[in-house]
Amino acid sequence: MKNVQGIAASSGIAIAKAYQLETPDLSFEKKTIDNPQVEIERLEKALDVSKQELEKIKAHTKEQLGDEHAEIFSAHLLVLSDPELINPMKDKINADNVMAETALEETATMFIDMFKSMDNEYMRERAADIHDVTQRVMAHLLGVTFPDPALINEEVIVIAKDLTPSDTAQLNREFVKGFATDIGGRTSHSAIMARSLEIPAVVGTKEITTSVSKDDMIIVDGMEGKVILNPSDKEIASYREKQETFARQKEEWAKLKDEPTFTADGEQVELAANIGTPEDVTGVLNNGGEGVGLYRTEFLYMGKNELPTEDEQFDAYKSVLEQMQGKPVVVRTLDIGGDKELNYLDLPKELNPFLGFRAIRFCLENEDVFRPQLRALLRASVYGNLKIMFPMIATIEEFRKAKAILLDEKEALKNEGKDISDDIEVGIMVEIPSTAVIAKQFAKEVDFFSVGTNDLIQYTMAADRMNEQVSYLYQPYHPAILNLINNVIEAAHSEDKWVGMCGEMAGEPLAIPILLGLGLDEFSMSATSILPARTQLKELSKKKLAANKDKILSMGTADEVLEFVNELIN
Amino acid sequence: MKNVQGIAASSGIAIAKAYQLETPDLSFEKKTIDNPQVEIERLEKALDVSKQELEKIKAHTKEQLGDEHAEIFSAHLLVLSDPELINPMKDKINADNVMAETALEETATMFIDMFKSMDNEYMRERAADIHDVTQRVMAHLLGVTFPDPALINEEVIVIAKDLTPSDTAQLNREFVKGFATDIGGRTSHSAIMARSLEIPAVVGTKEITTSVSKDDMIIVDGMEGKVILNPSDKEIASYREKQETFARQKEEWAKLKDEPTFTADGEQVELAANIGTPEDVTGVLNNGGEGVGLYRTEFLYMGKNELPTEDEQFDAYKSVLEQMQGKPVVVRTLDIGGDKELNYLDLPKELNPFLGFRAIRFCLENEDVFRPQLRALLRASVYGNLKIMFPMIATIEEFRKAKAILLDEKEALKNEGKDISDDIEVGIMVEIPSTAVIAKQFAKEVDFFSVGTNDLIQYTMAADRMNEQVSYLYQPYHPAILNLINNVIEAAHSEDKWVGMCGEMAGEPLAIPILLGLGLDEFSMSATSILPARTQLKELSKKKLAANKDKILSMGTADEVLEFVNELIN
Repeated sequence: MKNVQGIAASSGIAIAKAYQLETPDLSFEKKTIDNPQVEIERLEKALDVSKQELEKIKAHTKEQLGDEHAEIFSAHLLVLSDPELINPMKDKINADNVMAETALEETATMFIDMFKSMDNEYMRERAADIHDVTQRVMAHLLGVTFPDPALINEEVIVIAKDLTPSDTAQLNREFVKGFATDIGGRTSHSAIMARSLEIPAVVGTKEITTSVSKDDMIIVDGMEGKVILNPSDKEIASYREKQETFARQKEEWAKLKDEPTFTADGEQVELAANIGTPEDVTGVLNNGGEGVGLYRTEFLYMGKNELPTEDEQFDAYKSVLEQMQGKPVVVRTLDIGGDKELNYLDLPKELNPFLGFRAIRFCLENEDVFRPQLRALLRASVYGNLKIMFPMIATIEEFRKAKAILLDEKEALKNEGKDISDDIEVGIMVEIPSTAVIAKQFAKEVDFFSVGTNDLIQYTMAADRMNEQVSYLYQPYHPAILNLINNVIEAAHSEDKWVGMCGEMAGEPLAIPILLGLGLDEFSMSATSILPARTQLKELSKKKLAANKDKILSMGTADEVLEFVNELIN
Repeated sequence: MKNVQGIAASSGIAIAKAYQLETPDLSFEKKTIDNPQVEIERLEKALDVSKQELEKIKAHTKEQLGDEHAEIFSAHLLVLSDPELINPMKDKINADNVMAETALEETATMFIDMFKSMDNEYMRERAADIHDVTQRVMAHLLGVTFPDPALINEEVIVIAKDLTPSDTAQLNREFVKGFATDIGGRTSHSAIMARSLEIPAVVGTKEITTSVSKDDMIIVDGMEGKVILNPSDKEIASYREKQETFARQKEEWAKLKDEPTFTADGEQVELAANIGTPEDVTGVLNNGGEGVGLYRTEFLYMGKNELPTEDEQFDAYKSVLEQMQGKPVVVRTLDIGGDKELNYLDLPKELNPFLGFRAIRFCLENEDVFRPQLRALLRASVYGNLKIMFPMIATIEEFRKAKAILLDEKEALKNEGKDISDDIEVGIMVEIPSTAVIAKQFAKEVDFFSVGTNDLIQYTMAADRMNEQVSYLYQPYHPAILNLINNVIEAAHSEDKWVGMCGEMAGEPLAIPILLGLGLDEFSMSATSILPARTQLKELSKKKLAANKDKILSMGTADEVLEFVNELIN
């Protein structure tokens, strides 16, 4: 018996046999060839078969997980159809008389190295995509079986170095009880997928593939981030109990699905969900979401070669509003730039993209992109309870400009005879320190605030959260962050406006009591966090927590805050 | 008569004939050669002569402007001795039988393109350096006279596309009355040099070299950023008057050189200077500085191939403290990373360097770099009034760690029998929003604060000040910035601590009244701004400005603030 520690990526307990997802052997012997045409045909056939497979995986993913998760495969399909990648392979076969395998490998390696060397997250992801898809093509050229998690037909826990998007998408929930990987973190693609699929998972163990043998019995503890190898009977029994407790807890949560959210002392708050596509609404409703606190509209713009049309956008917004049946839906206007790029918009290369030309800054300078989105939103407004939110607002002038453009389009649409709701609230993300500091001045002009903690923390601490060397400074519980949030809430309430939070912090069990004490009105989180949050809030007294507010706000460090809150709620 | 508008780079009025600093013709005809050895010798000779010239320019600059400005030529000399640049030239001559000119041009172009393509300010500067020095070598190979501003022997205004560091360093103050360029901004190298030399200058006119003819009479108005071509007699007369007013004003300023700084209502503040090297102290004292508010220690680490020794640092710190004769000297510990890199430290490449591993973050992880600096400072402390300041502090834990290392070294030095002052104040830069927000908590532990506005503004507004597309967000008068500064001052005063400011804002005529009203204790600026600031402060009533504080702090936009302050003081 042995324990392997990793990172808790998805809650739950899994107990089953280990199934090693092998990395296929794609080595080959280089030969010169006589007939380039034959090799080009071999390459084309391998590309075609790979595309067919990816289409199937994409359809399967869309069905199981929704559009957002399926988008990655649209990107993969684009790679396999990209003449800039494929033509050099054919040229190489013709010019150098090499096998299709050699041409594929050398061309892919060249592109991967080029993208990797670019100092840019997006480009490095493209390198990973090219690697993922060209491996599949190579397997077909060599006649090697590519690992196919869809073939698993008995209860197992999948063990792998890492899971590619295509691996994760194919996991069959019926048989795959959990997974554990060597690499990855809480926000890696496979971890996010695991939470959506509700499969217990531990990632980043560094060693699980070498520690586990085929058919070993193992336990994955997705709460503690632990994998137990060859557990004793006693241990299995103890984990079965834990598994049942977790299942009972889920049942308890489920009972609260259609309940409003009240604290122990009878105060009501709203628990909403963050979504990326209309398909995500099902998950929101199944998990008892009382609204959509953040609809990220970027996915409409991604994985394609041109801007979405106004009508495409209208359809998406209408679908979300209708499905939510009058519950509030906060739509954030386009937030690109920074770490989110679009290949068809020629955005400038920046030295510090997180401090650069993104979101509202971009939209105010590119009204041809901004206005169609606003028109689509306005037209959809009659189908539900729409609230529009502008991201990355740093000055009141920016808000005024954005709102003026919105009102201008509203006027224009009315003149065109279109029906537009007259009850659309217009608010802003609070994710830039300047806006949190002068929230009182903003509160006179906006209808609501939504605190975006991911960016607010990164700017307030002047630390890029993706940079490992300074990630220790990404401190949600730093008293400065809590003071800024408090300032926003006090400012809003003094003008009878409401404040939500749509950053990761809003769903954290340790943050919820603090935020409740500060008076936060709406908590927006991953759909799967809503029921646990509602259960937690039932036990918390807002009055008691509010009484400790000043004490928390005057603390010096995040550690002090965490220690105090831990004591307070336990 | 015609006016050309540019950017005001250095105050004063110059009236003189235009002198076009020509760009030399360095074109040549490519020939194959018979004897590579001859070409290598020609190259070596041209390199030697260039190095000798640069040594002279460096010595001249050091004498006229001090070490800091001379450092650029150390870098240039390193380029000409760099085997990684020179050897490929020689190899090319041998391998391809080309002339020295061809080898020089092709090799230099390759390196320049490579450095330019790197997404990094520092590397792009290296490209400019290589261009500057290899042009000089090429001129010697071709026997072409390289423009030599040192030869100017009559009163002129220099007109150029741009001035290279070596051009500016050679300007003779006796004859060069002013200059105007097509390119550059207020913080370009030539603009900074002009202010140090007290030569009126207008930069970034875009067109001055094409608008001006040889021997045209012109006027440079360094206050308004204007160049008047072929002025009428009336205009010349009016500008002579303006020139005299400016000269009288300078005389007025000079009278206050040895005066303390008092406001109209008898409140005292301290006017200090920002320096980079011990040589800068002369300028501080000549301009009536009451202290050094920021001694940037980076220059000790730059333009060389290894870390400075503890003794080298000790000598520099001792020299500054002795020269300042007991006046306060605030030394900032090493602030590298971000836009300041050192080639001999292998710093990681970062996606967002301004939000990265820099300053105290680097020092706390690299005690082998940090401790020698602290030891040098402690040993120097007995020679004057030393205050030590840590940059980029975001959490109280960082301050505690840094201070603990300082106290540890103090203990060690005492055990070694060294004399150390027991009155060293230890403070922090406030340049990260988190620290400004919880200044009250920090005020209990630090001895003083110094607000670094350049970074504080950039983080608070989430806008890279070097990025043109978002530079409109670099707003020193944004009410959020003023509220954060106010928060720091109130927090400090409630614990009887003092607050300085060492960002560019501290010397701005419009900022000074606001900062005085907020209660700032120490204003640290360029030495040449001190006397104008003292003159301005003599006319300001602190009480009256403080009475308007709440009004300013509750404003919504920077424009409102500026309009109000303009009215208040005019």
